[in-house]
Amino acid sequence: MYIHQVAAYLPAEIITNEHFTRINGLSNEWITERTGIRARRKAAAGENTNTMALEATRRVLAAAPAFAATEVDLIVGATYTPHDTIYTLAHAVQRELDVSDIPVVSISSACSSLLNAIEIVEGYFALGKARRALVVVSEHNTAYNNELDTMAGHLWGDGSAALLLTPERLAPTDLDVRTVITGGAGNIGKADISVTLKPVEKGIVMPFGKDVFINACQYMTRVTQQVLERNQLSVEDVRYLIPHQANLRITKNVLQQLGLPDDRAVSNIEELGNTGCAGAAIALADTWSSLQEGEHVVITVFGGGYSYGAMLLKR
Amino acid sequence: MYIHQVAAYLPAEIITNEHFTRINGLSNEWITERTGIRARRKAAAGENTNTMALEATRRVLAAAPAFAATEVDLIVGATYTPHDTIYTLAHAVQRELDVSDIPVVSISSACSSLLNAIEIVEGYFALGKARRALVVVSEHNTAYNNELDTMAGHLWGDGSAALLLTPERLAPTDLDVRTVITGGAGNIGKADISVTLKPVEKGIVMPFGKDVFINACQYMTRVTQQVLERNQLSVEDVRYLIPHQANLRITKNVLQQLGLPDDRAVSNIEELGNTGCAGAAIALADTWSSLQEGEHVVITVFGGGYSYGAMLLKR
Repeated sequence: MYIHQVAAYLPAEIITNEHFTRINGLSNEWITERTGIRARRKAAAGENTNTMALEATRRVLAAAPAFAATEVDLIVGATYTPHDTIYTLAHAVQRELDVSDIPVVSISSACSSLLNAIEIVEGYFALGKARRALVVVSEHNTAYNNELDTMAGHLWGDGSAALLLTPERLAPTDLDVRTVITGGAGNIGKADISVTLKPVEKGIVMPFGKDVFINACQYMTRVTQQVLERNQLSVEDVRYLIPHQANLRITKNVLQQLGLPDDRAVSNIEELGNTGCAGAAIALADTWSSLQEGEHVVITVFGGGYSYGAMLLKR
Repeated sequence: MYIHQVAAYLPAEIITNEHFTRINGLSNEWITERTGIRARRKAAAGENTNTMALEATRRVLAAAPAFAATEVDLIVGATYTPHDTIYTLAHAVQRELDVSDIPVVSISSACSSLLNAIEIVEGYFALGKARRALVVVSEHNTAYNNELDTMAGHLWGDGSAALLLTPERLAPTDLDVRTVITGGAGNIGKADISVTLKPVEKGIVMPFGKDVFINACQYMTRVTQQVLERNQLSVEDVRYLIPHQANLRITKNVLQQLGLPDDRAVSNIEELGNTGCAGAAIALADTWSSLQEGEHVVITVFGGGYSYGAMLLKR
């Protein structure tokens, strides 16, 4: 399986830490020290999970002339911040592309959904039921976030990304998906209460950030080691590590456990905050042009719920 | 691929049509004539999509001593009425079972998600990444429904079901999954506005029921014919047709187009209303013990969004 192209979309409005200083008293220093976040994007009025998914889709297809929109034969959307749970982001993308009679589904395994979506695509390819897949990850965190929440209100940002996948290589720049591992960890720690988004009751809350922190560091490190071991590689073979963009301290902890220098990690959290399941895909889009032939990338994720995963890519 | 067992859970409270006569003036005759619905279940306070998923899971495992809970190695949940989009129903089920490090994901393709979930399982089996799968479909429609809505407030009911699937036959009563077809139809008709559930804006609304009706009848008929053709079967070979439980008039229209007598369809909508993606699975549970060896069942679904699917089963 190959990733032929990836592209991201970010809304224009930038919310800096000073916004939170004004509304809930958190200082820029306090926020950056604990999270690394200096700014995040906010969807405009009229934008939502579905419209951002469409923007990312348009961009990825525009960047991939060898992959015709009319040939898309599988769409997997992912979000935990849905605009519509019935006319889901995957269905909105299908309507935009106007391709009929193909499998279309949206999923959530919280912040780790990118890898679940890609593993689902892997299954469709194995069945021979698809050969031109579109994965779209999109989060409208600000629609569900309470900005006044001093525990987590400052963490979240909006954004989306889209990836094109094929069972065979289409171009020399395609990334070979060597291994995908996903795992739920709903039975671990405070998975049931640490991070929740109950649409009827309230938005995103994260009352037990420490439990998330500890488990995110452990799981992202461990599953990174697992994908490397399965491919007889060591951490030195990893050109870029792309962790879920939740917190710069988590990223640094994972790097330290793996024995990698700080500059080996790709990070966008400083400017984008936690963009949920879109974060790692946005980072992959940023990394796309700088990857050289033969180089490896590991994407490793952890999400509320809990869930985790890792994927080894090779150019 | 085989369905080893299926079980349903329904909340205790029964809401009859007279409830709607009192609150919004719709008469029993008016509702039954247009929908076939006489009653529906309503989750109790404290019940939700996740708790109903757990109840169905307990029941299906209790009915399947050959399928140990500890052996479950894939959980796919489905709902468009989520209790929590981060700690999803699939994660809640994982916590209940206390099985670690297995793929866990929840999906939505609206009322057709049962078949998308089973097709995703089919992919994991093809990859050799799972061999004991649990699919759980659960809808808490009343959490998102506006009972005063005279267009659609009387349609919805709550309920859940769980299915156990394996790549090889475990028991003589297992149902052989001969063919699964799923399709998005987000690019058709009024798919973007006919049925929506936008959690931030409002609950379930269905302003264009006629467009849903027309497309549901067409798609469920056509995809039923497709699964039969792929298996060189005719409609006479179908012992039971289990359509998505949306409206008794849709069911009768599909039967008529297929040339099947009314008693060939399995229906629970009279007593349960539209239980979303759980409806067809609940009907399969009701049909389980009466199916004889060699008999075929077709499940055919259509959902808002739009999306559709069919599955041919043989005992």
